[in-house]
Formats: sequence, C-alpha cells, structure tokens
Amino acid sequence: MSSVDLGHNFLLLPRNCQVRELQTILRDKTTSRSDFKFYADRLIRLVIEEGLNQLPYTQTVVTTPTNCEYAGVVFEKGNCGVSIVRSGEAMEQGLRDCCRSIRIGKILVDSDHDTHDARVVYAKFPEDIAKRKILLMYPIMSTGNTVIRSVKVLKDHQVPEENIILVNLFCTPQAAHSVVEHFPAMKILTSELHAVAPNHFGQKYFGTE
Amino acid sequence: MSSVDLGHNFLLLPRNCQVRELQTILRDKTTSRSDFKFYADRLIRLVIEEGLNQLPYTQTVVTTPTNCEYAGVVFEKGNCGVSIVRSGEAMEQGLRDCCRSIRIGKILVDSDHDTHDARVVYAKFPEDIAKRKILLMYPIMSTGNTVIRSVKVLKDHQVPEENIILVNLFCTPQAAHSVVEHFPAMKILTSELHAVAPNHFGQKYFGTE
Amino acid sequence: MSSVDLGHNFLLLPRNCQVRELQTILRDKTTSRSDFKFYADRLIRLVIEEGLNQLPYTQTVVTTPTNCEYAGVVFEKGNCGVSIVRSGEAMEQGLRDCCRSIRIGKILVDSDHDTHDARVVYAKFPEDIAKRKILLMYPIMSTGNTVIRSVKVLKDHQVPEENIILVNLFCTPQAAHSVVEHFPAMKILTSELHAVAPNHFGQKYFGTE
Amino acid sequence: MSSVDLGHNFLLLPRNCQVRELQTILRDKTTSRSDFKFYADRLIRLVIEEGLNQLPYTQTVVTTPTNCEYAGVVFEKGNCGVSIVRSGEAMEQGLRDCCRSIRIGKILVDSDHDTHDARVVYAKFPEDIAKRKILLMYPIMSTGNTVIRSVKVLKDHQVPEENIILVNLFCTPQAAHSVVEHFPAMKILTSELHAVAPNHFGQKYFGTE
Repeated sequence: MSSVDLGHNFLLLPRNCQVRELQTILRDKTTSRSDFKFYADRLIRLVIEEGLNQLPYTQTVVTTPTNCEYAGVVFEKGNCGVSIVRSGEAMEQGLRDCCRSIRIGKILVDSDHDTHDARVVYAKFPEDIAKRKILLMYPIMSTGNTVIRSVKVLKDHQVPEENIILVNLFCTPQAAHSVVEHFPAMKILTSELHAVAPNHFGQKYFGTE
Repeated sequence: MSSVDLGHNFLLLPRNCQVRELQTILRDKTTSRSDFKFYADRLIRLVIEEGLNQLPYTQTVVTTPTNCEYAGVVFEKGNCGVSIVRSGEAMEQGLRDCCRSIRIGKILVDSDHDTHDARVVYAKFPEDIAKRKILLMYPIMSTGNTVIRSVKVLKDHQVPEENIILVNLFCTPQAAHSVVEHFPAMKILTSELHAVAPNHFGQKYFGTE
Repeated sequence: MSSVDLGHNFLLLPRNCQVRELQTILRDKTTSRSDFKFYADRLIRLVIEEGLNQLPYTQTVVTTPTNCEYAGVVFEKGNCGVSIVRSGEAMEQGLRDCCRSIRIGKILVDSDHDTHDARVVYAKFPEDIAKRKILLMYPIMSTGNTVIRSVKVLKDHQVPEENIILVNLFCTPQAAHSVVEHFPAMKILTSELHAVAPNHFGQKYFGTE
Repeated sequence: MSSVDLGHNFLLLPRNCQVRELQTILRDKTTSRSDFKFYADRLIRLVIEEGLNQLPYTQTVVTTPTNCEYAGVVFEKGNCGVSIVRSGEAMEQGLRDCCRSIRIGKILVDSDHDTHDARVVYAKFPEDIAKRKILLMYPIMSTGNTVIRSVKVLKDHQVPEENIILVNLFCTPQAAHSVVEHFPAMKILTSELHAVAPNHFGQKYFGTE
C-alpha cells in the first residue's frame, strides 16, 4: 500500500528520525505515563504545525524596524479546532501552543455495543462554524467510524467537506481507505499508516486505565 | 450571608488583591478572549493549589545534598481529577500544571429542556476511583444542579462523599446552599460567593460563542 | 528569631502544607532533576503571585456581559522583572506564567575568589527602569552579598529602593538581616527563613552539576 | 549564493508557509511584544526539533501493550544545550519543550566597543561537557563573531567541533561563511539566510528596548 492509493488529500508527516522516535516511545508499553504525555504532546505539535501549513495564505509585504520592506506570507483568519471526545481532547493543548486563542469546539460520539453504530451524544461549535476552516482532531483511527460520524455532524452544520483538515497521529490502512472513500474532498494528515493502531492512547494520556 | 452559614466544609480562597484583579478581568465584558484565557488559567491555578492543600499529608524527614536532615511533609498518593464537561475541562491544564501526571476523568451531564433535570450522558473514570481522593472541577455554579448530578454519579461509583473536593471559581449563594445541603461531607472551594455568576465563562474560554 | 525583628518590609509566604511539601521536595537530595524543576516552578509561581500582590492597585468598576456593574480592582502598569544570573533566571518562566508579556532585565554579578567581593559584570534593563516597579528575582540567599550588589546597580540606575520587591525562595537569617539593614525600604518576600540554604538550587535546576 | 557553497554541514529548515509566516511576523515592526514572543517560541521549537533530528540514534525494537514487536529508533543519551547570552536564552524554553530535563549551560560574550573583539565574561557548563553532544543556541547571526568566540570556549573545554550543532533562526550570508570557514566540522542549522538580520530580536523578546 502506498499513500498514492489514498489520493492527494491524504498526507503523511515527513517521517524523520525524531518522528520515528516519538512513535517508538508512544508504542512502547514500558513508557511511563508522564513521559507518554510529554512525547505525545511533541508529536501532536508537529502534526498540528503541518496541519496549519495546509491552510490558505496570501502574499504580503511588511515593514521591518529598520524600515526595510520584507516579502512574506500571512494566513487567512477564520480557522477553528474541533476535538472528538475523548482522545481528540489530548490535541487541544498542542493546537493552543501554535494558535494561542483559537476557538475550539467538541463532538462526543458513542458506539452502540450491539450494532457498533456511532451516534452523536454531544456537540458544541462556534456559531459561525460553517464559514470556518476546521482542524478536526482525533489521534487514533482504527476503523474510521467515529471520524466518519463526526464529519457527518459537521456537514449537517453546513461545513463544506473541503474546509476540514483531519489531524491524526496513528491510522490503519483500513480506516484511511474508509475515510477517504466517504469524504474524498477532506484533507487527512497523519504521522503513521500502520496495521496496528495504539488504541491505549487516550487511556494512557488521561490515566483512565 | 457569611461563609459560616455554609459550614466548615465550604471554603473561600483568601481574597487578596491579585485574586480580586483576576475576578475583575474575568467579569469585564471588554476583556479579549486571549486575555480571558490567560487570567482564567491563573485564577484556576490558585484555586487548584488551595484545593491540593486540603488533601491529607503526613510528616516526613528527608536528607539534603549536604547530608542534613530536614523535617517536611509529604502528601498521600491516590488523588485524581474529574472535570465536568464542558467548562470543567478549562481547569484540567491548571491541575496538570500542579500535578504533572495526575489521572483525569470526566463527566458529561445534560439538562432536559422541559424538566430542567440533569442527566448523565457520559462518564469516564480511573478504574479504582472509589479509593481515590477526587478534585472535582467545575468553574461556575449558578444553581448547583449539574454538580449535584455529577456527585451522585461519583457516589454511584462508591466514592465516599468526604473524598471529594469541589474546586470552583464563581458560586452563587443559592448554589452553595443547595450543594452543601445535598452533600454536607464534601469540601467545596471557591474564589467568590456572589449573586451573579459569570455564565459566559465556558463559551468565552473555548471561544464557542 | 521572628520575622518581626526584620521589620514590616520582610514578608514570609503563608506556610501551608503545599508550600511545605514543595520545600521538602526541593530539599530532598533524592529528588530527580525533572521533578526538581517541576516543583521549583510551582513554588516560584506561588511566590511570584504573592509578590505581584504587593504592587499598587486602584479601585475600578467594570461592566459584565449582562451589563451589570462589578466593583473590582486593577493593578497599575509599569512593572518589570529583573533576574540575577544565574539562579534568578529560573524564576523568569514563573513570572511570565503570571504576567504574559512583562519586560525582563538581567544582572550578572561575579564574586572575587580572594576578597569575596561581588562585582557586576553584565546588566541589561528596560530603558525606563527608573520609573518602574521591579520584581527582583533571586531564589537562594545565603549571605545576601549578591543581592546587595545587584540592588546597588538598580539604585545606580535611579531606581528608588521602595520600588523594588525582592522575590526569593529560601533565605538564611543572616542574609535577611544583612539585606534589610542595607535596604530598609525594599520589600523582601521569601518562602522560608532557615539557617541552611539549599545552595544546589541553580545547579540542579539547570543541570550544570 | 546558494546553500551548496556553505557545505553539507550548513542546513536550512524546510521553508514551508508556516515557517515563512513566522518569519514574516518576527520581521514586522508592528507586531506586539506578546505576539512576537509567542511566534518566536513557535519558530524556535521547529528549529530545535530539526536540530534534535541531527543527533545520533540507533535502531531498537519495543514491545507494545498488546505484546507486539515494533521496530523503532532511540536517540543516544548525553546531549545538552548551551545558550549564548542574551538572545540565546530565548531558545531555552523551546529546548525544554522538546527535551524535558535537558541540562542547559550558558556563555556570555562581550564585545569591546573599540576593537569589536568578542571576549568571554562568563561560562557555566555541565562538568562532563566534553563528552556531550551540544545544541548551541543563538537566534541571530549578523557577523558570526559572538558565535565564533563561543565555540572557541567550548573547544577550550575539549568539546570536539563535530559534537556541536548550532541552532539559529536568522543568519546573514556573511556570518554563515565566516562561521563555516572557522568550524567546518560543526553543524549549523538556521531558518533563513538573508542579507538583513532582525537585530532587534533579543530586545523585543525580553522587552529591554
């Protein structure tokens, strides 16, 4: 499987050695919870930085303190974050570390134990969400069902699919294909495509083992 | 009304000028969201510090690098935080700033629009919650209904009432009386008792106006 | 010895159990460096909060989002921090955690190995330092010589003695008496007055053992 | 001028749009000090992450919580940071955000006003510095003189040139050539090579204008 199969909207974080080290620490069952949280936050920040990089920007010229002109870029306003409870909330601080006062909404999806259907039990967004670019935060994707249900909620709120960037840490090929198939216009950014997802992530991060 | 009426388990943060300034900034409708979050975090940390101070501790003697003995204190292990969604989550970072790797659970209570009854839609705790001392986080109390419902959930999980410390920023006298009456053995810590609660807190903190 | 002997400008942080626990951890030679830094930062924030509380403020009335009036307080502008290198720099982050964009100056004093005289080798201040209230940061005072030399530098820059608040963590009675005698109008705030100062503080905090 | 001329030890941070936006904000004279610090910290973290990526690592296999094997990497121990006073100290927090309890040393170099010679007035290192890999932090390089003097101090302490990675934000071509010529075995990492260096960086970051 290559990322090409998943189309140009599916993006992998450049996999340098730091990224690989962070993935290794998060996979390792002997990692302490304090370390787990610290290194998870680092990997989250790197994925968020790359996610922000997908947002639209324009050219600009600014004046320096020595009154020179400097040709730069400026990102457009009107972004927000939405975390999928519970593990997505682990990514909120990383988003704030990069965008100090960004608005952050939330979706809580529950799975029916019998049918495995995902159902929304809670959602809270900025009022003008339909006009915003959205960083949808969810660190672990095994099947993609929770994300698919959450994106449907956003679309119910008139958010265009192409305004959503899903930021993720670990993704299975199955989940990647499922989500891409459902929402081909949504951008997906992850740090690793691997058959086994570290499903203990949320429990270890928040200590609710 | 004085705090005496509310019994010895109801505690007010010492109201020095910094605390009053933070309350003033959080009450002021002209405060920017970036400032609101920054100063809320400061007040939260001060309330959390005072809340931690209510936990049990024991005497200890440690050896210094120069091999002297030093008589100190050590707090007992086995604490955890529980935030009441949504505004209670604003207090999670403050708790982590004081207790690096503390476990954090979560309760989501919804109000019925017709009956105003509070009902639990989601709860996630550390497995051994019944044995832990709990800092229950909820910043604004107007009626106390959400807190009362949440404490019932904790008691359903066999948590003794006296193991809970409710940490709060702003509380109305009505809510204070209601919560104290329901749970006389629970400790309640707030920074201000005032007839008007700043109900915009959660929306302003997370930017979901 | 009581703090009364040291006059009304010498202030001790209220010594509750949390403060005592932090002092215990910082005194304990078995504390890991990671924990040392974390708990030092907590004690530093508490001292800084108390230091900020000494600054001048005025009454104000603000309007709440529900258009009520709220009687509050506002602190005067024009403060800055000055850290004494090197251990004082450990307090800079704590100051920023409370005052987001406060200006921070710096003084480096060196001791002559033969004469034990302190001599200034470097100083960098905001240009208008003479008009500001100054939080002078230095965590450990054994003899007080470094602080005395540093305050002289500030006075050379036309800073009135009464505009300086020295924020400190651990102080010996000898140092307290010496500094109070030299600068009776300067406020001094510490968390502990004890015959033995933990002189390993800076080396352990920065890891330059 | 191309980076090729500077040899394979001179590295430029991949210049994506987020990086360009951060550079734009830091160049803009209308940027508030609070924003300046926030965005500088973001750019610093990105450079530090890339700097850490230059450190030696080895292959490892870890066991996951589900008892699978995972092939990962682990970085070698024995790194430390050294900041060149004053502006280099702005990079210390970013380093700690990536390496929680890394040891941090310090060098203070002063320039003679008449001869423009740089001279060391203060240096403090971990005792075993000669055996460590060093991230040398200095954000702005105009001439390279301060860095050259600082590296000489490290070499006087038996640190091999190839053990040093200089992490920098803004560098002039003149400084780049001068430093590369002096220390061809040292790695240099910067985010921008530009004829004009934003020399107001340290003053704006610390507010000592």
